[in-house]
Amino acid sequence: MTQLENARQGVITDQMRQVRADEGVEAEALLERICGGLVVVLANKEHGHVNAVGIGEGLRTKVNANVGTSPGRSEPEGELEKVRTALSAGADTVMDLSTGGDIDLTRRTIMEHSTAPVGTVPIYQAAIEVGGPEHMTLASYLEVFERHAKDGVDFATVHAGVTLGAMPLVEKRLMGVVSRGGAFLLKWMADSRRESFLYEHFDEILAMAREYDVTMSLGDGLRPGCIEDATDEAQLHELRVLGELAERCREAGVQVMIEGPGHVPLDQIEENVRLAKECCGGAPFYVLGPLPTDIAPGYDHIVGAIGGALAGAYGADFLCYVTPKEHVGLPGPEDVRDGVIATRIAAHIADVAKGIAGARQLDAAMSRARAARDWDAMARCALDPDRFGVVLAGEEKDDRCSMCGEFCAIKLFQQTFGEGESQTR
Amino acid sequence: MTQLENARQGVITDQMRQVRADEGVEAEALLERICGGLVVVLANKEHGHVNAVGIGEGLRTKVNANVGTSPGRSEPEGELEKVRTALSAGADTVMDLSTGGDIDLTRRTIMEHSTAPVGTVPIYQAAIEVGGPEHMTLASYLEVFERHAKDGVDFATVHAGVTLGAMPLVEKRLMGVVSRGGAFLLKWMADSRRESFLYEHFDEILAMAREYDVTMSLGDGLRPGCIEDATDEAQLHELRVLGELAERCREAGVQVMIEGPGHVPLDQIEENVRLAKECCGGAPFYVLGPLPTDIAPGYDHIVGAIGGALAGAYGADFLCYVTPKEHVGLPGPEDVRDGVIATRIAAHIADVAKGIAGARQLDAAMSRARAARDWDAMARCALDPDRFGVVLAGEEKDDRCSMCGEFCAIKLFQQTFGEGESQTR
Repeated sequence: MTQLENARQGVITDQMRQVRADEGVEAEALLERICGGLVVVLANKEHGHVNAVGIGEGLRTKVNANVGTSPGRSEPEGELEKVRTALSAGADTVMDLSTGGDIDLTRRTIMEHSTAPVGTVPIYQAAIEVGGPEHMTLASYLEVFERHAKDGVDFATVHAGVTLGAMPLVEKRLMGVVSRGGAFLLKWMADSRRESFLYEHFDEILAMAREYDVTMSLGDGLRPGCIEDATDEAQLHELRVLGELAERCREAGVQVMIEGPGHVPLDQIEENVRLAKECCGGAPFYVLGPLPTDIAPGYDHIVGAIGGALAGAYGADFLCYVTPKEHVGLPGPEDVRDGVIATRIAAHIADVAKGIAGARQLDAAMSRARAARDWDAMARCALDPDRFGVVLAGEEKDDRCSMCGEFCAIKLFQQTFGEGESQTR
Repeated sequence: MTQLENARQGVITDQMRQVRADEGVEAEALLERICGGLVVVLANKEHGHVNAVGIGEGLRTKVNANVGTSPGRSEPEGELEKVRTALSAGADTVMDLSTGGDIDLTRRTIMEHSTAPVGTVPIYQAAIEVGGPEHMTLASYLEVFERHAKDGVDFATVHAGVTLGAMPLVEKRLMGVVSRGGAFLLKWMADSRRESFLYEHFDEILAMAREYDVTMSLGDGLRPGCIEDATDEAQLHELRVLGELAERCREAGVQVMIEGPGHVPLDQIEENVRLAKECCGGAPFYVLGPLPTDIAPGYDHIVGAIGGALAGAYGADFLCYVTPKEHVGLPGPEDVRDGVIATRIAAHIADVAKGIAGARQLDAAMSRARAARDWDAMARCALDPDRFGVVLAGEEKDDRCSMCGEFCAIKLFQQTFGEGESQTR
């Protein structure tokens, strides 16, 4: 039985217990949200040593880091290093998006070492193994999907919302399609002149997902690739199909979340989150960024943090990181680290805004340490203590900092009013 | 006559002409907004070579970089280097917040070299020169203010909203007061048991500001220093006083803007912008950050960019940068650069969201370059071309990038559908 099926029978699994302990939520509330499809618990039955992660309403906003080879850079060890970097920087999950070298070996190397849930996008390997997306068949796809599921992959992106009906809509765009999975399916449909096999045979994929409890991550193959294309007809067409498919996942006892954009101007982010939640029955929403500008290559981790904080505050549950290398090339370990930290900042800001239990207390603890000029306590409260240490190196660590020196406002305030609240709370 | 007084007489000054050309707004609309106090034009009559900058409704969101010595680091050359770094990174204005070494020399060195408007906070020097804030007098303050005005300072922070009425309110706080100016005034009031001389003698300051056309930047001496203290009674008490003082500025023909927080959780940012605009008759709103979390020292430029993008989108007009060194020490040139760029990203995202003329076109140009995999055009469209070059170094610069290699979604899309919109728009 999947976590969803267990919840429906009122069974609290070990994985749910772990989520409960991690998040400090009541068992009753957690069960109810899993039953309603508002929360998923990532934990493939075959991923023995996985630390189950809960994603969805009322839980801490989670952060995913993408790794994976490309045709030009295909060493499994390099990707494993990135996984280790991502997890040590605090990522909650990783996705292996490999498209180069020995894809099975890379995935299995990552699965073996990752205690965090691992996601994949099986269509990449399915297209590559048959020599191009136009040669894919249902059978070859299902065979790859099962390989991933058997390896213990906890969640899999399936772009089943890219259908024939969207084809005339994407032609109007400035950037066309920027999702590899989306582009593969459009190519397959254009060549075969048939409806997408992922959509047509969705039940067969679901049966396999159910067997291993792979959480379906319904991909946004038509996500906008520039803010000009945001919230357009192609995107909304796909979202409506995803809503229908999400319902079919829940009917089949399969856990499901929804992937979202992409490049979205700031003033459309709230609407994008609201639409996704409405169309898809409140399923956990997993956003890539979003990126509210296109013009800052080299800083897309900052752009993504701006969009992600806002999306999270409005209800997105899961943020896929963006690294400084986005739009330029494959990230290295330093880029992975920068991307994870920026996205964790966004997730925490969102958690404070939406009132996730325990979030504000972290800020209050830091502020008490700051009021006391207690540099060791600040280090313990810092989201990234290592970076705090680097920035602090060479600075005075006494009863003031080098910004104000003797003219420290906090000290002067305390001399004027006494130590007050900051010492007693 | 000040820019405001000129506008009231229907006179379009050279400085207004420059703003018009920079922003692409109609003369009529600009005059009307200046008359209404919705837009200020920073240009002290004595700052001969200044490029006037307009700030306010309908204009591009501007970015300020703070520099300045502290008691421990007091070389004017070091601060000049930071000014040059800030301006080359695209800051619209700089503020000299010096509190160490020869404060006059540092300011004059910066004024001499900066073609951008320069702001200061005269109360720092006023307190330091008399041996501490408790020894300040109206006369000594006015003397310092005039020295700054005569040197050509284009805008000056005046914390005249910190009044006796706020004293019982700040005691309730977790972090107390984190503004140096605010702490100086509280100390002065506590020792003298008298109302703030800035508030009591505001008209005398205004007379001097009018003479040189120094724009008053009404300081937020009681801004929250942690998200726990945000939007509290102390902050709102000061804001109401600032509203009254802003009206008095306009009556005196003096340009005015309002400074705002500070540490503010994401879900309170919209309210903070709305309250400031409502209380202060729509005066341009100048925010420090805001910072929607306290726990990310070392990354406060990212935290500030998240808050600044949102504040700007809701109507803030002027963003003061925050550097990675915030809460740790005095920034160096690299920190200045990182702070300016992150804040420019936030400002542009806000401009896209609030529909500033020309903003979206920059994104569309980048996206056309991206669709064509035209790396030179991308470099021209990048907010920071230097950084783009660094990130791109060592990458293939052909018809794809190393992220997807031969599996480039954009290429595949164009092979499927033809080049389409991306080539023709």
